Amino acid sequence: MRVSKLFTKTSKTAPADEVAKNAQLLIRAGYVHKEMAGVYAYLPLGQRVLENIKQIVREEMNTLDSQELIMTGLQRKELWETTGRWDDEVVDIWFKSKLKDGTDVGFGWSHEEPIVEMLKHYLESYKDLPMSVYQFQTKLRNEVRAKSGIMRGREFVMKDMYSCATDAEQHELFYQSCIEAYKRVFDRLGIGESTFVTYASGGAFTQFSHEFQTICDAGEDVIVKTSEGTWHNLEISPSKIPTPNVQDAPKAYEERELKNIIGVQALLKALELPIEKSTKTLIYTAEGGESIFVVVRSDYDVNEVKLATVTGLSGLKLASEESVRELTGAAIGYAGVANLPENVRVFYDDSVEGMTNFETGANKTHHHAVNVNFGRDVVLPEQFYDFKEAKAGDLDPATDEPLEFAKSAEVGNIFNFGTQKSEAMDFTFTNEKGERQFVHLGSYGIGITRAMGVIAEKLSDERGLVWPDNIAPYRVYLAQLGTDEKVVTAAEKLYDSLQDMGVAVLYDDRNARPGEKFADADLLGIPHRVVVSARTVDQSVFEYKKRTETESLAVDLEKLKSILTA
Amino acid sequence: MRVSKLFTKTSKTAPADEVAKNAQLLIRAGYVHKEMAGVYAYLPLGQRVLENIKQIVREEMNTLDSQELIMTGLQRKELWETTGRWDDEVVDIWFKSKLKDGTDVGFGWSHEEPIVEMLKHYLESYKDLPMSVYQFQTKLRNEVRAKSGIMRGREFVMKDMYSCATDAEQHELFYQSCIEAYKRVFDRLGIGESTFVTYASGGAFTQFSHEFQTICDAGEDVIVKTSEGTWHNLEISPSKIPTPNVQDAPKAYEERELKNIIGVQALLKALELPIEKSTKTLIYTAEGGESIFVVVRSDYDVNEVKLATVTGLSGLKLASEESVRELTGAAIGYAGVANLPENVRVFYDDSVEGMTNFETGANKTHHHAVNVNFGRDVVLPEQFYDFKEAKAGDLDPATDEPLEFAKSAEVGNIFNFGTQKSEAMDFTFTNEKGERQFVHLGSYGIGITRAMGVIAEKLSDERGLVWPDNIAPYRVYLAQLGTDEKVVTAAEKLYDSLQDMGVAVLYDDRNARPGEKFADADLLGIPHRVVVSARTVDQSVFEYKKRTETESLAVDLEKLKSILTA
Repeated sequence: MRVSKLFTKTSKTAPADEVAKNAQLLIRAGYVHKEMAGVYAYLPLGQRVLENIKQIVREEMNTLDSQELIMTGLQRKELWETTGRWDDEVVDIWFKSKLKDGTDVGFGWSHEEPIVEMLKHYLESYKDLPMSVYQFQTKLRNEVRAKSGIMRGREFVMKDMYSCATDAEQHELFYQSCIEAYKRVFDRLGIGESTFVTYASGGAFTQFSHEFQTICDAGEDVIVKTSEGTWHNLEISPSKIPTPNVQDAPKAYEERELKNIIGVQALLKALELPIEKSTKTLIYTAEGGESIFVVVRSDYDVNEVKLATVTGLSGLKLASEESVRELTGAAIGYAGVANLPENVRVFYDDSVEGMTNFETGANKTHHHAVNVNFGRDVVLPEQFYDFKEAKAGDLDPATDEPLEFAKSAEVGNIFNFGTQKSEAMDFTFTNEKGERQFVHLGSYGIGITRAMGVIAEKLSDERGLVWPDNIAPYRVYLAQLGTDEKVVTAAEKLYDSLQDMGVAVLYDDRNARPGEKFADADLLGIPHRVVVSARTVDQSVFEYKKRTETESLAVDLEKLKSILTA
Repeated sequence: MRVSKLFTKTSKTAPADEVAKNAQLLIRAGYVHKEMAGVYAYLPLGQRVLENIKQIVREEMNTLDSQELIMTGLQRKELWETTGRWDDEVVDIWFKSKLKDGTDVGFGWSHEEPIVEMLKHYLESYKDLPMSVYQFQTKLRNEVRAKSGIMRGREFVMKDMYSCATDAEQHELFYQSCIEAYKRVFDRLGIGESTFVTYASGGAFTQFSHEFQTICDAGEDVIVKTSEGTWHNLEISPSKIPTPNVQDAPKAYEERELKNIIGVQALLKALELPIEKSTKTLIYTAEGGESIFVVVRSDYDVNEVKLATVTGLSGLKLASEESVRELTGAAIGYAGVANLPENVRVFYDDSVEGMTNFETGANKTHHHAVNVNFGRDVVLPEQFYDFKEAKAGDLDPATDEPLEFAKSAEVGNIFNFGTQKSEAMDFTFTNEKGERQFVHLGSYGIGITRAMGVIAEKLSDERGLVWPDNIAPYRVYLAQLGTDEKVVTAAEKLYDSLQDMGVAVLYDDRNARPGEKFADADLLGIPHRVVVSARTVDQSVFEYKKRTETESLAVDLEKLKSILTA
């Protein structure tokens, strides 16, 4: 491609309303065009990067014998009603509209239900299994905010794959081979070294669900590495307080009346207590109606995913203000374990273990209990649990070594449905004995446009984008300096010769200053830059520089070719 | 691909509610899955056909130096308001929804306005022109009915291309080269011989707009060939009555009162007149308010596109009942040229030319005038026009040779906007003198899924689909008959060998009856069938048959390879 023919142009500035670095760079370099927040068109250079990413993903999914297809954007309400997911209260990112006759239609934010419905037409017997299908689909999600550029859009491209198996064992084989395929994908995309398989919070099947998280400052997630090297999503990371609670001699229990105190800091100041002597009690209501008291040290937060696992209770929600008043007999803000109502279960996080002379709510309006001690003022629980949200400085409970935290972006996820969805949608096969059984389903996503955003974000430098060879829109930026006939002739010849080799070349044939050409080459992030000038022609060489290096080399044609085929 | 691994299965029956042959065959063969009326998923075989079609189109668009990109499905209301096309009264096939904050969004049924808006960011100077961009985009159109399978969908894939030029001349060069590229596309898709460039009715720029129509019984259009071989859309085809009107001696003018007569046939019967002695008068109101009387012979209809051209009036609509009553002073159904109101313009179609003793409405309730003659009872017009809708038997006015009619499907269209849209959207460039001028725009579509439907519809036979080599999902259907080791070994070897040659093979490795395999090969429409059986192995040959032929041949490997590389 000749730069003179490429209709997009680079720009020194990005739109003022664009806060994400990936979008700023991609817009400045002419890769994408912002249609509205979270909705981007992919211009020729961007389209080429996307297709390169898709092709890598396609090749790797094909190694799993997965079959490519393409589902529809328009979706039927009835399918989603079978699983209760049409309801905007359950799925709050639907775009919906109506056919002319008033029939409701949805625009695909996911394709799980339609895929299952379609597969029901074809899969009959255990002989048809295992099998899997995948697609590259444009998903629409009505996100409230969309400020992360192409890393989180209202319209984005996803590779979604679905596997069907006869049983958990057959499922697991596919699941594991998919993990390996995903690793190969992220390696080929140039982010393999910073992409980690994490244990993810997947509801009922947490233990079988994983995410692929790429460490990235612009990511919206936090992942946590335990000392043996396993990564977890923050939501399910184990954690332990860095130093045991200080044990000191019991002081006399007191209830203190305090008015006009707002917030923990003010309370601690009024009570002259360090935060490590203070506890926080939250009241949750579970499905079925049981309310429980949940206690952590005041410098921690409760992690609800961990709490659900620990308590074995589902549908946990913070109790309503009304329930809190009724249970504690006090205004909001005074719940605690002193003067505990009868018949209520209390769950203590292990951050509270060993605390002495601590503060807790007195379950009386304006009253806090201080110098509280286990065994004397409150019952010592049989067990302390780990349901606090891990934070910097915390230890891995298994080894007492510090946890490592990193901001990250989820570029892939793999998920085991078990037979949950098959049961909801009556998706069965006939086994060897002629019995109908529910299909074991798995779902496997890769955010194609998100991965492009993460790469733009992570690998770029102060001069612009930096694409890995595998996905760059063009591998070589050929800059002709000046318009001398001999220079033009040499540049044109090299352009043809590299293209004949199958190398994609962006040929800067413009009559522009060298500085402008070099700045564009850098902003566009083309991996290899080759300069043809009067000087290089005279010396029968080319000036070669890698995007990621600062020094250029004088190389002859053979050397250049060998670099590009390395 | 092994048939045993392909998850789709063929079926002897299609869904009862599917009336279109293309969809019946594509569903039975497992190429598509119906999500709802007019909305189809493309399963692995269908997806391969689609991609093959897209690749052919892509290659030909690239010869025009057009640049591929991909716009967004979600679109902004404001862009469409600039051209008045957000209004559901103007564009009645919008799907619309809202962002969480209440902002209206549309789902792309076209991308003209967003493309222009995007290009405004990049095109500045005459040096940037000419240029063009294209995309393969999923369009959503809220059609009232969708019964033509994949030939007219609510969700479908289109290649849309847009060209920008400095002036009409530069535009025309691109336009003509696009016509040639489209011809190459349809040739490569195997429908070149039955696809014709037709003059299309394109509103203000009719003379510069064309369609590509493929003759096809399932098509929704009719095209008309004039004797010199030019095709027109029915809407703009010239026509002439087959034989001149019979001239006979004037009879006495009469006005006849007739009650309880409904319809032309009943009227003619009551009056004992042949239809060739009867005229039909319609009253149209133009933009600006002028009402005109429009007269055709009763066996013809008025074609409004031709009428607009002939009269030079825009916004022509049938006059309201109230206006008709006011103008004629009579009830509906008695408009005519007898007792004509003053100051009204009358346009006569040439089907009326030379009529004598004819019937017309008397502009009096229950009254018809008969034995009307020009020059005596009504003014002989200075000119007769051609605005009737052409029908079978009509002549080409230029040569008096019969017109040829054919049902057809529009597979492509090319359209000149002139500077109309650029003016509405303020899309300008700077010319060589530094002056701002409006860009000349063109738009060029190919219905990708529709073309697939037309091919499925047209080329199929009673046994199933028939794909041309260029777009078949697999070129060879390799059927292994029986499970003898020597047969399996020979079939596997051929499978590998053909794939090594780059030939896409669907290998029927199932343990199934020969008849079932042959029926599937035919239904699936794979162009070349190769059979490996105990007999062929013994004779060191393969049994080869083309899908379009009935006789099979015994060929050796060399011969088979030469057939497949021919």
